[in-house]
Amino acid sequence: MEFLNKIKFNTQGIVPAIVQEEKTGKVLMLGWMNKEAIEKTILTKKVHFWSRSRKKMWLKGETSGHYQLVREIYIDCDEDTLLLKVEQIKAACHKGYKSCFFRKVNSEGKLEVVEKKVFEPEEVYK
Amino acid sequence: MEFLNKIKFNTQGIVPAIVQEEKTGKVLMLGWMNKEAIEKTILTKKVHFWSRSRKKMWLKGETSGHYQLVREIYIDCDEDTLLLKVEQIKAACHKGYKSCFFRKVNSEGKLEVVEKKVFEPEEVYK
Repeated sequence: MEFLNKIKFNTQGIVPAIVQEEKTGKVLMLGWMNKEAIEKTILTKKVHFWSRSRKKMWLKGETSGHYQLVREIYIDCDEDTLLLKVEQIKAACHKGYKSCFFRKVNSEGKLEVVEKKVFEPEEVYK
Repeated sequence: MEFLNKIKFNTQGIVPAIVQEEKTGKVLMLGWMNKEAIEKTILTKKVHFWSRSRKKMWLKGETSGHYQLVREIYIDCDEDTLLLKVEQIKAACHKGYKSCFFRKVNSEGKLEVVEKKVFEPEEVYK
């Protein structure tokens, strides 16, 4: 995987990865990946991230079954950010929404929920 | 701007901001913003970033004229990432492409340019 050597990981050995739904163009979330997570993602075709809080690699959807099946991987001009186009099973957000960006800043500078829940977190994360 | 108090800036006082073209859904780039850059973006309607290398705020398009006119701002569930939907003047990438993600990983694990240049950098950045 020649491109792996081009990636400029930060001092913690990770890069941000934007996840976009291929079908709709919807931006679903931003995660962080180390080299191992990228390799595992390519090998399994399921998106893996590096958890900065738990300091370990994790498979997105391992608890919920809401996997992200990777279709295409892009890299930016600075080679320090990835863009993953995926097929999202059910929903990306652990709060029950399709996208993690389910809140918009309104004209008063307040946050407003602009998506409908597609699952109930209490039923999925037991 | 009530939502500014909700943002969880990192230890350097910045958050990643994904920039997406509103019209097409194309992901254009990822930048970093501090509180001041967000305020200035809202005030002027033109996207401002924090430059981590130059350690100063900058107006995207200040040299090229390729401004990003902000239309909507979203925040993610963890409140540590922003999504900006914008109208992109000409192109986002300083290398002459519409998007900074102009290269895709191909089936051999190599990078392949998948966009056409829309301007010549040497003519714009003199």
